Amino acid sequence: VISKLPQTGTTIFTTMSALAAEYGAINLSQGFPDYNCSEELVELVNNAMRNGHNQYAPMAGLMALREQIAIKTEKLYGAVYNPDTEVTVTAGATQAIFTAISAVIHPNDEVIMFEPAYDCYAPAIKLMGGVVKSLQLEPPDYRIPWDMVKRLITNKTRMIILNSPHNPTGTILSKHDIDELTALVKNQDIFILSDEVYEHLVFDGNIHHSMARYPELQQRSLIVASFGKTFHATGWKLGYCIAPAYLMQEFRKIHQFLVFSVNTPVQYAIAEFLKDENHYLGLPDYFQQKRDYFNKGLEQSRFKLLPCSGTYFQSVTYNAISDEKDTDFAIHLTKEIGVAAIPVSVFYRNNTDRHILRFCFAKRQETLDKAVDRLSKV
Amino acid sequence: VISKLPQTGTTIFTTMSALAAEYGAINLSQGFPDYNCSEELVELVNNAMRNGHNQYAPMAGLMALREQIAIKTEKLYGAVYNPDTEVTVTAGATQAIFTAISAVIHPNDEVIMFEPAYDCYAPAIKLMGGVVKSLQLEPPDYRIPWDMVKRLITNKTRMIILNSPHNPTGTILSKHDIDELTALVKNQDIFILSDEVYEHLVFDGNIHHSMARYPELQQRSLIVASFGKTFHATGWKLGYCIAPAYLMQEFRKIHQFLVFSVNTPVQYAIAEFLKDENHYLGLPDYFQQKRDYFNKGLEQSRFKLLPCSGTYFQSVTYNAISDEKDTDFAIHLTKEIGVAAIPVSVFYRNNTDRHILRFCFAKRQETLDKAVDRLSKV
Ligand SMILES: CSCCC(=O)C(=O)O
Ligand SMILES: CSCCC(=O)C(=O)O
Repeated sequence: VISKLPQTGTTIFTTMSALAAEYGAINLSQGFPDYNCSEELVELVNNAMRNGHNQYAPMAGLMALREQIAIKTEKLYGAVYNPDTEVTVTAGATQAIFTAISAVIHPNDEVIMFEPAYDCYAPAIKLMGGVVKSLQLEPPDYRIPWDMVKRLITNKTRMIILNSPHNPTGTILSKHDIDELTALVKNQDIFILSDEVYEHLVFDGNIHHSMARYPELQQRSLIVASFGKTFHATGWKLGYCIAPAYLMQEFRKIHQFLVFSVNTPVQYAIAEFLKDENHYLGLPDYFQQKRDYFNKGLEQSRFKLLPCSGTYFQSVTYNAISDEKDTDFAIHLTKEIGVAAIPVSVFYRNNTDRHILRFCFAKRQETLDKAVDRLSKV
Repeated sequence: VISKLPQTGTTIFTTMSALAAEYGAINLSQGFPDYNCSEELVELVNNAMRNGHNQYAPMAGLMALREQIAIKTEKLYGAVYNPDTEVTVTAGATQAIFTAISAVIHPNDEVIMFEPAYDCYAPAIKLMGGVVKSLQLEPPDYRIPWDMVKRLITNKTRMIILNSPHNPTGTILSKHDIDELTALVKNQDIFILSDEVYEHLVFDGNIHHSMARYPELQQRSLIVASFGKTFHATGWKLGYCIAPAYLMQEFRKIHQFLVFSVNTPVQYAIAEFLKDENHYLGLPDYFQQKRDYFNKGLEQSRFKLLPCSGTYFQSVTYNAISDEKDTDFAIHLTKEIGVAAIPVSVFYRNNTDRHILRFCFAKRQETLDKAVDRLSKV
């Protein structure tokens, strides 16, 4: 068989989590909590199953859940989405991203994205025959150079992919970015795929600049979010996409034949759980404390912290310590020191290596303590 | 936005189930049971959640589940699959089918399939730039005319899609079909996508001719199956794909960026449940009784039964009654008679209308009674 993705190997998350398991290392690589999700949420899933809600959900998702998503979106960002035609529940954010790209990108269409970039965007674009046009952002701030973006735009540019809060870097878009983006796409036939999986994880009093806040952007955006990340249940694989009806119509044409529908009892549970906004409004504080705790611990180490304004990932440099490639160093850390991290070079198409590692701090205090302890010995 | 699937509307399953709900009709359209799945299975999911198994499963699926899939496949069909490299758990069979097509079909590749055909194959092929080459099969037996298949083959033919037991017709492949298929693909660079979602629903003492039984076919097949169908929990969206390592490697390259992984607690539950083969070995008898019960009821009606050797669908003609288009007649039945069915013309690309409806008989006896009662009044 001739490979559709000849350059593509196994995603780093599989590789590092497997290595961590093999060596019994503390796994700060793949992004998931090491504590359980809420008991209330588990009970809600259980109730839905006992009440017989175990058959196909509607293709676009349970209406009760779509309504709650619309309510939450309006409350947080002021945008009105019609649950009937503008909200679709997906098998995690990854499925939403793949579907959004599939729905919009034709062969030879160009997609602008920024590196380091989460690893599922480019393969989906390539599968659709699209062309990746990416710009490398520079640490420590990873600012988007909008003048350079402007120069990338051609009449084939069909999509810009944004991701704020940004994985892996932990940066967030500013109002300045929004203004530049708005000026850029105005009167252009360009859509935005906005990966807002970490929408609730914005720290230090900043706000999340969702595309849903800005009508000029909102009207051309497919926005993707994740309940797995928000509610500490990454294994439930529940996310969603919101978009204006004319885009959502195309999204659903693919969604219905790609997965048809998503786990029913989980949808019942999340629909109920979302009714209490306290279930997500406390998240910035919760994770900011974890960030600060982890970072304080690392102060005594030889790692240097990069800024982190959002997500549950902290990037560090280790230049002072070693010239090793970040992938080799990540393997070394896992095997010898007992802490697994993600080497950030994997998020660049040409594997640009700036000696940066990404640690996930969505962990119990004792786990962070143990990890810091080990990392301090490096 | 320029549509990627300009000819594609909303899947018939969404349309008919929504119409059934709107009119309070008995829903024999979309294929799912109207009774709950096993309590034991629900309890297994609940236990997995309580035990904290709520984070990402491995990308290819929980090893315990992959092992059980391999054990079951060897026991039933004699084929040995390596759980490490040849089994992948998916978000339902639909996701497996979409991923299999994405992994193999390049632009301009030709795919041979047979109509009536389940509605998710063709859109996936088109999205990948592939070309659908389909043959219409003729009721009542829907035999595959292998000489005509042979004439369809060109050096661009990359895949044949088979589906046995067949949805919507309820036919099954015979040993003769297997022999013809084997002769056809031998020494050719042609892969088989085998949709075996109803593998356990084969009646009248027949056996299921899985591609896994025949090494010459098995070595070029992506076989797709569904736990939702098998264990009466279609809303859990759990299926899988098995394929030789060289094909599975390409499948996983897409799977990892399309959905990454699948609901963890459900995987734990099914892995445990599969250990007892009685959980599926009784299914042919169970559904054959339902088929016979439903069909006996319809004897008094003006519908004429077509043969049904597998699946939980019974096709009927209504020629004697009406010349109405099957889509119109299905809407009429739903609105006026109170029973929803699937008009089979939707499974033909050119909507060939042979006045055939498909009823799902995976229903409680009282539901079938009520449906028969209403249908007898037509
Ligand atoms: C889908 S596995 C990767 C989880 C994640 O979002 C991350 O670690 O960045
Ligand atoms: C994915 S919804 C359709 C269910 C089904 O397999 C059918 O009714 O044929």
